[in-house]
Amino acid sequence: MKTNTVKALYTKGMSFDIEIGGHIITVDAGKEVGGQGLGPSPKPLMLASLAGCTGMDVVSLLKKMRIDFDEFNLKIEGELNDEHPKKYNKIVLYYQFTGNDIPLDKVEKAVTLSLDKYCGVSAVYKQVIDLRYVLEINDKISEAVKV
Amino acid sequence: MKTNTVKALYTKGMSFDIEIGGHIITVDAGKEVGGQGLGPSPKPLMLASLAGCTGMDVVSLLKKMRIDFDEFNLKIEGELNDEHPKKYNKIVLYYQFTGNDIPLDKVEKAVTLSLDKYCGVSAVYKQVIDLRYVLEINDKISEAVKV
Repeated sequence: MKTNTVKALYTKGMSFDIEIGGHIITVDAGKEVGGQGLGPSPKPLMLASLAGCTGMDVVSLLKKMRIDFDEFNLKIEGELNDEHPKKYNKIVLYYQFTGNDIPLDKVEKAVTLSLDKYCGVSAVYKQVIDLRYVLEINDKISEAVKV
Repeated sequence: MKTNTVKALYTKGMSFDIEIGGHIITVDAGKEVGGQGLGPSPKPLMLASLAGCTGMDVVSLLKKMRIDFDEFNLKIEGELNDEHPKKYNKIVLYYQFTGNDIPLDKVEKAVTLSLDKYCGVSAVYKQVIDLRYVLEINDKISEAVKV
């Protein structure tokens, strides 16, 4: 069994330096909520974690499938509910590719393999959050599909 | 309703630059799994998100209670299961304070208010992950308490 450890050191105001496997990330609250905006705020990091997790899966799977692309962006939107605790109730992932001859079915296969089987972050979120994905290949945009 | 957005741009290898509210974080896989270790790997960012969220709550609540401390570290350990998808099945938060005259009951009040009421990250995780906290004030260490 593997264990991941992070260590957050409180610095000042609302800011923490968080050590993650030898890398330091500063998190802070935005100026509108009493912080100084020295780094990203915590809740979007939940989305960044998801982006990295499924993004790496998809890159790795497309490479195995020998699918080339020019550019890959993964935009993630998370809707927060209004009452406390303010948590995500819906997350939409937009997998955006540009390039020539990118087959939609292969991209969909890679994305669903990640979200259904490999990504340990989406595996947690989808149990309690409405998680959907959209595929965008050049100008072609698919319907949102629920995971 | 508020929406958070992050944008991950694939750069090279397993690495992505993720834009979060004007800040860029590079995530990468470790060298042992085909990456170059250019930044933190995605899954520990789930723990960093939790650290920032509850850490800021606790700092803010202790300030309101007029409780002073010299140092505050928040260590978080997440145990991953072995089979795919490799997700956290247990997370332990260690709230570590040093300083004079820090009342345990007030710290516990701040921590439980965060984990029960305010923190939108723990609110998601605790529904599907065994979440526990430990309070460490100077040399005094409490039992782990399930959230």
